[in-house]
Amino acid sequence: MTAGPGEDAAGLARRCAADLLRRVEDRLRTLLAAERETWAAVHEGAVVPVDALAEMIGSGGKRIRPAFCVTGYLAAGGDPADPGIVSAGAALEMLHVSALVHDDVLDDSDIRRGLPTVHAHHTALHATSGWQGESRRYGEGVAILVGDLALVYSGELMAEAPATVVPEWNRLRSEVMIGQYMDVHAAAEFSVDLRSSRLIARIKSGRYTIHRPLVVGASAAGRADLAPVFEEYGEAVGEAFQLRDDLLDAFGDSADTGKPTGLDFTQHKMTLLLGWAMQRDEHIHTLVTEPGHSYDEVRGRLLDTGVPADIEKHIAGLVERGCKAIADAPVAPVWREELAAMARKVAYRNA
Amino acid sequence: MTAGPGEDAAGLARRCAADLLRRVEDRLRTLLAAERETWAAVHEGAVVPVDALAEMIGSGGKRIRPAFCVTGYLAAGGDPADPGIVSAGAALEMLHVSALVHDDVLDDSDIRRGLPTVHAHHTALHATSGWQGESRRYGEGVAILVGDLALVYSGELMAEAPATVVPEWNRLRSEVMIGQYMDVHAAAEFSVDLRSSRLIARIKSGRYTIHRPLVVGASAAGRADLAPVFEEYGEAVGEAFQLRDDLLDAFGDSADTGKPTGLDFTQHKMTLLLGWAMQRDEHIHTLVTEPGHSYDEVRGRLLDTGVPADIEKHIAGLVERGCKAIADAPVAPVWREELAAMARKVAYRNA
Repeated sequence: MTAGPGEDAAGLARRCAADLLRRVEDRLRTLLAAERETWAAVHEGAVVPVDALAEMIGSGGKRIRPAFCVTGYLAAGGDPADPGIVSAGAALEMLHVSALVHDDVLDDSDIRRGLPTVHAHHTALHATSGWQGESRRYGEGVAILVGDLALVYSGELMAEAPATVVPEWNRLRSEVMIGQYMDVHAAAEFSVDLRSSRLIARIKSGRYTIHRPLVVGASAAGRADLAPVFEEYGEAVGEAFQLRDDLLDAFGDSADTGKPTGLDFTQHKMTLLLGWAMQRDEHIHTLVTEPGHSYDEVRGRLLDTGVPADIEKHIAGLVERGCKAIADAPVAPVWREELAAMARKVAYRNA
Repeated sequence: MTAGPGEDAAGLARRCAADLLRRVEDRLRTLLAAERETWAAVHEGAVVPVDALAEMIGSGGKRIRPAFCVTGYLAAGGDPADPGIVSAGAALEMLHVSALVHDDVLDDSDIRRGLPTVHAHHTALHATSGWQGESRRYGEGVAILVGDLALVYSGELMAEAPATVVPEWNRLRSEVMIGQYMDVHAAAEFSVDLRSSRLIARIKSGRYTIHRPLVVGASAAGRADLAPVFEEYGEAVGEAFQLRDDLLDAFGDSADTGKPTGLDFTQHKMTLLLGWAMQRDEHIHTLVTEPGHSYDEVRGRLLDTGVPADIEKHIAGLVERGCKAIADAPVAPVWREELAAMARKVAYRNA
């Protein structure tokens, strides 16, 4: 790509990234369309899991992981015409779809991106159809298989990327599963263990969402040497991302986020927000775990601890740390600026 | 490898295959040991999902898929010293472990290979520990993540195999997920639809267990041209394998199989055995779906239809068809004999 008339380097950089992200969308859609066609020829019922994924992909989502992946790639000097990076970005999004479908079962969430979750939909279908067996087991079983299928497709997509991505892709995938296990386990125990909470936040957000997608992109461009810089940036910005998530869950608007507010309370998620607040005010533990307390009561008590305000300051510090990490990175200045802008965007989003 | 003193071609062939299968075991164990070490250094709780997989791998299993994979490879003239085929065999077994862990949730099975299933173990652990939330959701959630981790490791292993395996590996994986969905759906509907039952049996057993592992092996050796022969063999022997499975579930000894007898009845699995029997005797539908009927009653009624005896004859025919399919295959005669022996072994096993 070359700069259009009146377009500066930043404009061109953004156009390159936006173009790759459009191709990521196309790749996701063409894969699912091809699979649908294959399976429709086999049996009319076989398309159901494929359609469930197409609906998830079509219902929105922020595409943060593909965005960091293509940005890492372009910052590392990768060729924007190479289809491998498109597949890598699509693989990351498909992996995320798998994680969401399974996560919704783990959390028993009914709504995702404004639509019924996969297990909620199939549980209801079973119940209204009068089929054999337990509706919950059927609905959750279908969601397990739909998430498995997405995990398989993500591997299929990443196999189209340059083989240099394999080590980071392996780390990313096993790490997110183990991080999810630790999260579920911490929610069950629900005792304040800030070391464990920070580790989970680091694994589930910093690494999974920012650091490793950037390194996958850089590795696809043959620049694994950028891993330490992207790690430092990603861990800081990822923590800011996660803290914003905690705040949005507690105080956000469900019309923006597409999911109910207060899910972390219902599910006893030992978030950093809750962990820090409970250190200052033990009574919050009771408010969260014992029935009969409204979200407003929990929210009011959280605000009284002063933790939300402190978290806002902490987020600002993390964004600054992230920007500093890439200030001298061996990449073109335009990509340093772009990464700084992305740090602010994920830290100050409203959904 | 060269023949030992007094060893004939068949002896040497079997020794090569056995050696590769031993190395498959080693690869499975070294991967999990390395992952355990990595995660133990991060957090003492992070090793739980890895240990769950190590326990599954260590508790036995027939290793049918790795056996067909290395046989397909050696029959295709692959180099027994190449580590890629070892990783491919290990990947197939790890995928199977993933499928078993998730399958046990889908079927709500408590016992597998004589041990508590992953979800049963973690459900009980939650209940006895007095943790927050619902024990069933916790136990099944952990099993979802443990199965996901195995699926990730299987991809990691297959990435070590020659890239020529990718197309067949992709087909195998997406097909097994969609086959599982169709199976779960058919069990919920529980209406006799022999077209759908045969399709499910073909996908879940013939292709997943025999045909595609053989083709993965042949592709690793650069002999994708063997795919049609292995397909014909695999579809026949796979159907025999599945029919034996149906018979073992209904009439086998749980001390041999390591799982309770009659699971297909409890779960309303629309097996070919049940489908055929219900065509001859509609009352069996009631015996299976309505409470208050013992397995012995179902078993007696099944035997009265004559279907089990007919299935035995059908199995014999399928084994013959499988052997015929490879009788003129462009592989060394010793491998034709070995594949014929394997057909008899899977069709006449007792576990």
